[in-house]
Amino acid sequence: MNKKMNLLMFSGDYDKALAALILANSAREMDVEVTMFFSFWGLFLLRNPETFTLEEKSVYEKMFSMMTPKGPEDLPLSKMNMSGIGKQMLLEMMDDNEAPHLSDFLKGALKKGVKFYGCKLSMEIMGFKQEEMIPELEIVDAKEYLKDALEADMQLFI
Amino acid sequence: MNKKMNLLMFSGDYDKALAALILANSAREMDVEVTMFFSFWGLFLLRNPETFTLEEKSVYEKMFSMMTPKGPEDLPLSKMNMSGIGKQMLLEMMDDNEAPHLSDFLKGALKKGVKFYGCKLSMEIMGFKQEEMIPELEIVDAKEYLKDALEADMQLFI
Amino acid sequence: MNKKMNLLMFSGDYDKALAALILANSAREMDVEVTMFFSFWGLFLLRNPETFTLEEKSVYEKMFSMMTPKGPEDLPLSKMNMSGIGKQMLLEMMDDNEAPHLSDFLKGALKKGVKFYGCKLSMEIMGFKQEEMIPELEIVDAKEYLKDALEADMQLFI
Repeated sequence: MNKKMNLLMFSGDYDKALAALILANSAREMDVEVTMFFSFWGLFLLRNPETFTLEEKSVYEKMFSMMTPKGPEDLPLSKMNMSGIGKQMLLEMMDDNEAPHLSDFLKGALKKGVKFYGCKLSMEIMGFKQEEMIPELEIVDAKEYLKDALEADMQLFI
Repeated sequence: MNKKMNLLMFSGDYDKALAALILANSAREMDVEVTMFFSFWGLFLLRNPETFTLEEKSVYEKMFSMMTPKGPEDLPLSKMNMSGIGKQMLLEMMDDNEAPHLSDFLKGALKKGVKFYGCKLSMEIMGFKQEEMIPELEIVDAKEYLKDALEADMQLFI
Repeated sequence: MNKKMNLLMFSGDYDKALAALILANSAREMDVEVTMFFSFWGLFLLRNPETFTLEEKSVYEKMFSMMTPKGPEDLPLSKMNMSGIGKQMLLEMMDDNEAPHLSDFLKGALKKGVKFYGCKLSMEIMGFKQEEMIPELEIVDAKEYLKDALEADMQLFI
């Protein structure tokens, strides 16, 4: 299909990210162009746990960096998380059905050519540095997101 | 209006479902084609309380079936639910204004020809069986959702 | 750009409203037409703290009026609000980066000609009166929202 899809990833919840990445992978398999724009809590999904750093951060940025999820598998559920028990239950149910996990869908999306944009202002406010994120992430501003989204055939705020 | 609207129902909150079904009913009255695709928590809205079963389910699926809302009027609010007090308050305020409840809008949407799709993968992971859902629900995969959504004039993730 | 964007503001969270108003301001700077339709919790953003009243309201409407946010800076975060501590932290981080606050972006959007629609049914159910809201708010019903949204190039549910 000669179509384009743009997903604004705001929430940073495991279940919502899972839904979005399943859509992104499926769309690429249908030859639909896909852009995902990560802002605010959505950026937690693309943190690289191995390049986590507290250097050159303000006190608030350090606290924030430590208190928040450090990559895809660390994200909570949007509902019924119950300090992780609900999430564990969902993961077991996914395993019973041999459904891949979030990090697998993320790898798939990267491999299939989904475009990954990160919100410049969110990165600055949260004190995240480019090297703390996955290398495929391109940092853009709100206007670059809008240009891409307005040309797409569908847009979702997730 | 010769237009199409596609709503992805993810959240399973009473208030969000209410907003979505008001839009769906209004759109049908304007002769707009409407598809609602229910995935994850959104599926709770379409459970039929009368065909609830625990048979042929794994332990996790049984627990999950019992712990989660069993139909439209059982859904919590997305905010200020306060163990149901906030929801009760909203319902009283709706009654004072003679506004219909969620199940009324659901019946209206079914009658007016809104297309109801359910997400295959979510059904499998949660262990829900077709016969536990309202009979109008057609089970489709992510690609069928995308085909429909990409042809629509507007799409929302709710 | 000769384009139109329509945002359905449902949530009433500080962070989501911030993201939406940054998009609205940026879009106007690109000459994109913008409509924001406020329903349910989204209406809290447009309450005028100076015209707050309890007169001619039912008991529930009074309770609801008092328990809910009374304008933009009063909104909670969608996540990590932690009784306001998380929000305070985010605001300090915004100040460190000299990022404007929500009320600044709201003023900007009003000045730049974003169209502000409020949901008639939500206003009635919550018992909000026109004079309790910012004067720029025009009250419309779901069909007027749909007419506008279906003609837009992108629509988001926030």
